[in-house]
Amino acid sequence: MLMTAMCGGLFNQAQAGSELTTLLMLLHENGTITTEQYQRVLAESQATEQKNTAKIKNLQTQLDKATEVEVSVKGGVKIKSKDGAFSTKLGGRLQMDAANFSEDGKNQGDGTEVRRARLSLSGKMYQDWGFKLENDFTKSGVSGITDAYMTYSGFEGHTFQVGHFRDSVILQELNSDNDTQFMERALLSAFGQGRHMGLGDNYKGKNWTATAALFGDKASTNSATSDEGWGVAGRLTATPYQQGENLIHVGIASDYRELRSGSSVLSFKTSPESHLGGLKLVDTGTIVAAENYQVSGLEAAFVKDGFNGQAEYVRTDVERVGLADLAFDGWYAQMGYVITGEARPYKGNKFGRIKPKSVFGQGGTGAWEVVARYSTVDLSDKDVLGGEQDNFSVGVNWYATPTIRFMANYVTVLEVKGGANDGVEPDIFQTRFQWAF
Amino acid sequence: MLMTAMCGGLFNQAQAGSELTTLLMLLHENGTITTEQYQRVLAESQATEQKNTAKIKNLQTQLDKATEVEVSVKGGVKIKSKDGAFSTKLGGRLQMDAANFSEDGKNQGDGTEVRRARLSLSGKMYQDWGFKLENDFTKSGVSGITDAYMTYSGFEGHTFQVGHFRDSVILQELNSDNDTQFMERALLSAFGQGRHMGLGDNYKGKNWTATAALFGDKASTNSATSDEGWGVAGRLTATPYQQGENLIHVGIASDYRELRSGSSVLSFKTSPESHLGGLKLVDTGTIVAAENYQVSGLEAAFVKDGFNGQAEYVRTDVERVGLADLAFDGWYAQMGYVITGEARPYKGNKFGRIKPKSVFGQGGTGAWEVVARYSTVDLSDKDVLGGEQDNFSVGVNWYATPTIRFMANYVTVLEVKGGANDGVEPDIFQTRFQWAF
Amino acid sequence: MLMTAMCGGLFNQAQAGSELTTLLMLLHENGTITTEQYQRVLAESQATEQKNTAKIKNLQTQLDKATEVEVSVKGGVKIKSKDGAFSTKLGGRLQMDAANFSEDGKNQGDGTEVRRARLSLSGKMYQDWGFKLENDFTKSGVSGITDAYMTYSGFEGHTFQVGHFRDSVILQELNSDNDTQFMERALLSAFGQGRHMGLGDNYKGKNWTATAALFGDKASTNSATSDEGWGVAGRLTATPYQQGENLIHVGIASDYRELRSGSSVLSFKTSPESHLGGLKLVDTGTIVAAENYQVSGLEAAFVKDGFNGQAEYVRTDVERVGLADLAFDGWYAQMGYVITGEARPYKGNKFGRIKPKSVFGQGGTGAWEVVARYSTVDLSDKDVLGGEQDNFSVGVNWYATPTIRFMANYVTVLEVKGGANDGVEPDIFQTRFQWAF
Repeated sequence: MLMTAMCGGLFNQAQAGSELTTLLMLLHENGTITTEQYQRVLAESQATEQKNTAKIKNLQTQLDKATEVEVSVKGGVKIKSKDGAFSTKLGGRLQMDAANFSEDGKNQGDGTEVRRARLSLSGKMYQDWGFKLENDFTKSGVSGITDAYMTYSGFEGHTFQVGHFRDSVILQELNSDNDTQFMERALLSAFGQGRHMGLGDNYKGKNWTATAALFGDKASTNSATSDEGWGVAGRLTATPYQQGENLIHVGIASDYRELRSGSSVLSFKTSPESHLGGLKLVDTGTIVAAENYQVSGLEAAFVKDGFNGQAEYVRTDVERVGLADLAFDGWYAQMGYVITGEARPYKGNKFGRIKPKSVFGQGGTGAWEVVARYSTVDLSDKDVLGGEQDNFSVGVNWYATPTIRFMANYVTVLEVKGGANDGVEPDIFQTRFQWAF
Repeated sequence: MLMTAMCGGLFNQAQAGSELTTLLMLLHENGTITTEQYQRVLAESQATEQKNTAKIKNLQTQLDKATEVEVSVKGGVKIKSKDGAFSTKLGGRLQMDAANFSEDGKNQGDGTEVRRARLSLSGKMYQDWGFKLENDFTKSGVSGITDAYMTYSGFEGHTFQVGHFRDSVILQELNSDNDTQFMERALLSAFGQGRHMGLGDNYKGKNWTATAALFGDKASTNSATSDEGWGVAGRLTATPYQQGENLIHVGIASDYRELRSGSSVLSFKTSPESHLGGLKLVDTGTIVAAENYQVSGLEAAFVKDGFNGQAEYVRTDVERVGLADLAFDGWYAQMGYVITGEARPYKGNKFGRIKPKSVFGQGGTGAWEVVARYSTVDLSDKDVLGGEQDNFSVGVNWYATPTIRFMANYVTVLEVKGGANDGVEPDIFQTRFQWAF
Repeated sequence: MLMTAMCGGLFNQAQAGSELTTLLMLLHENGTITTEQYQRVLAESQATEQKNTAKIKNLQTQLDKATEVEVSVKGGVKIKSKDGAFSTKLGGRLQMDAANFSEDGKNQGDGTEVRRARLSLSGKMYQDWGFKLENDFTKSGVSGITDAYMTYSGFEGHTFQVGHFRDSVILQELNSDNDTQFMERALLSAFGQGRHMGLGDNYKGKNWTATAALFGDKASTNSATSDEGWGVAGRLTATPYQQGENLIHVGIASDYRELRSGSSVLSFKTSPESHLGGLKLVDTGTIVAAENYQVSGLEAAFVKDGFNGQAEYVRTDVERVGLADLAFDGWYAQMGYVITGEARPYKGNKFGRIKPKSVFGQGGTGAWEVVARYSTVDLSDKDVLGGEQDNFSVGVNWYATPTIRFMANYVTVLEVKGGANDGVEPDIFQTRFQWAF
């Protein structure tokens, strides 16, 4: 509309510019030109105007068409309709790892791997409807499907979600692996819930968020003759302090799960914060007679310019049929310092990836970050002796561009107490090359 | 070219607008300006014109470039060259199901699943050549490949097709699962042929179509030491009556298949019109000594405004080596009524998805449809006792937007007679959330 | 900027065209119009100019936005930022094969297959950084990942590469299967190294190239307790003669590999230049006690207008623990003649696909090529009796469009000497339909 008015007006005036008409009128008034001459030139001027108006319409149509959608390309591609009601993003990520183990009694395999290789299609339709489908090509069939859902955000503040998405109980799980400050999540990923098929509501208040969801099991297409497990999860977060990029984040969450009827295969284990090693140093093994369990967590984090910190405590309670209840727990605390000064970005109720102020190769240095983490998990309780593990890790992250990151981590297993690998305490050096958009 | 003419003309006139030239001439004739003055202004006017012509060319080039391709985004993305010779579509679908079984003697597992999760790339090249590749991420490796073919439509009316595509024998199989009115196809999907590697011709007459194709086996990369099975299929359809969106469709089709040499693994079975249950109530088991079989079908359908109906009868004949021939059959009839009045769209020789007149969340209600179906299949003949099953189903479909659909189905197994599950007659309630584009 | 200047200039002049101002001045000088009249028209003219300047800015913004990225579609889609710093390409390929074996003693299975079905996302970010992720849907999970890497080309001539990419030792492996002149590579693909996780540098000199890389094993996510194998590879190529499209190419390459510690599963085998047959006529079986091996090759090729040729000799040396060393080798020579005259395109240090001068279906014939190849491989040495095989093949390739190709190959197994299939010498006729972009 604006365009129409603008172009129409613009060219009409350019043609029969009022100044020419005025000059014509004055010349006529002055008697310089005759009435007949005046009318002849005026008629010519009007005819030109009419012809041009039609041509302008044509031009407008072309310009409107050309600006109907906005296409942007930064590795991934994003296409957006002009009115914002529709958008589609083609995204991807590739994480390539290498690891070396200074072994301690038991073998871990030095080597390389494609940690994650994903493509995703996501976007918005008819203003209020969102969609996403992402697949990880490192996994086979349905187990490669990560995010696969639809959303509806037609009610102020609420985003309803249906499909395969993350249980919202542990902050370090909610932060995308594209964005986490260490290559692998802390030891309490032993209690990680991953994604399940669910139905939830995410509410965003002024400085708080609330999430509640009902879940079935993982995405699958396996027809079965026993009832699927299910769960219910909730999380509350708040930012009691937020000033520009600086903030304090706190949260509390819990996730209750009932196991698939007639086939309990519950176990908790974790790699030593390195995915490449084949040995899980702590592992409960299958917990027989388990019926249900509850994962509960407390989380806190802060950002103060280039400094940031994050800590979490998670406890898991297991109910067994005819056997005593079990409780396992763990926690970690990590600190980061971005030497180049960028603040760790906060996204509603979790954290994003550091965006370098300058790009390497275009006169800049990228962003440089150093990080340190202490983490521990205890998988031993009563008759279940999974072992206890303590780790200390340091790392350097280089964000060469907003889409490219290099990571180097050094992990020291401080202690493994109990379980099958008691006293096996390797050191691990590992690196990652990542592109993600 | 149009653009060139238009812009050139437009600006030239705006510059040296004939009215100014005329005025100049008149003033000269009247003696108001001297010949020298006249020539000076005329020369200036011509110089301006020349300068502008060059600038216009530049502008044209930019506008031409900006309108070279048309990009549209409605969830999926479609990119089309201006001349129509090239187009590429990035499409996707996600179907998320939940089901509850009121069991009857034998267990079926309540639960959820990702029914289908697909991305596809399709389009047109050099005017006459078409291509498509679609993968379903719920399946592993080559079994995830659905449509994978190329087409050539350089001969009027004909579309030749090579690759992995559907045998064209059962109407309910040809209607995309994005568009079918029930969550699962009727019981005679026991005879579904799915897709095979083939070479075919689709001919479109004025009010009829003919399809003929030669097929190998399913897409695979398994190198083998026995010869692959093969088949030949044909289908004829007609619309004896068609007035706007209203029509009557009839069709006849047959598909003959020779099994892989030396390894007969033929069997016919079907889920109770619910994919989530693990139990197939009727099932022939492996039919020993089977050599070839033929699936033949009769189909009819109608659309009358919001009303629509579809019915099919399919019979399958099996030849065995040294054993009597077998015959199985089944049929279904289904009715739909779109409360909001949309007509079920007809696409050449099959049916598409209802397109709501109004969109939910943008002042509209979407489209609402109620459906009912009776279906039956008989998998018992002679020594093969697969059982006979009768189902009655009702459903509600809500097309919130052209790309989003919610389905709720209630399936009553009326009778299972014979076979391993004689008398097992559960009721099933199931729902689906779907986005597709 | 150009745009701004251009449009600004253009319209300003169109408005207050200097010719009108000149005329005004002359009329004023002549006394035809009064000073008051002169100033009135001049003021009007300037006001119009100012108004239009604002409007022009708006127009510019729109035009700039519309030309910010360039989108092109030729089957695949390529999106490029105007400054060239970013680009993304969505590519795909589909190869559909059928084969018939005139058997000779042992069965090979006639049939069809999807040979390759791939989608890829590749491109450029922030000028110097490249990325690619490609998946082959005919394979499951991580084994479907083909190219998956990032590159950095910020140093003149060098392209550093990290990730999963081809070891650069055999020319016929480096030429993309979209572009090879026969459906399957020659027998010495028995020594094919495929892709490994690696870190390399590709240097491009004036008429030579050098590649060096350090490799781990194939892409995997299998955590293991033994150390991964590794390798180091180098290749040197030169074009001693190059005149337009005509050239002589020579190269030398070597690839040393140490096997995974504690689990040697080395074997060399090859299909009879037909992927569909299940029988590998020559096969060393597992070479026990193998510790490392080295593949070395000599390559030469030429292009002279429609004529082209390519030949390679490859030798593989195996070291065993406590057993004698082994040596296997093979070579092939192939000739092509493009009847329609197109030259086989050279791409730095390998060959691309013939690009037809005219397109079939648009008044053209496409490009037609005939090819012939002799190839041999010897997999017998000392105690390892894999057999020796000689093949002769002819083929016809039709490049209907730059993206569509049909191939027909006739392969004669001249001799199989030694090994489990001594004397089994089938003939094979096979065809391929391919689209790739």
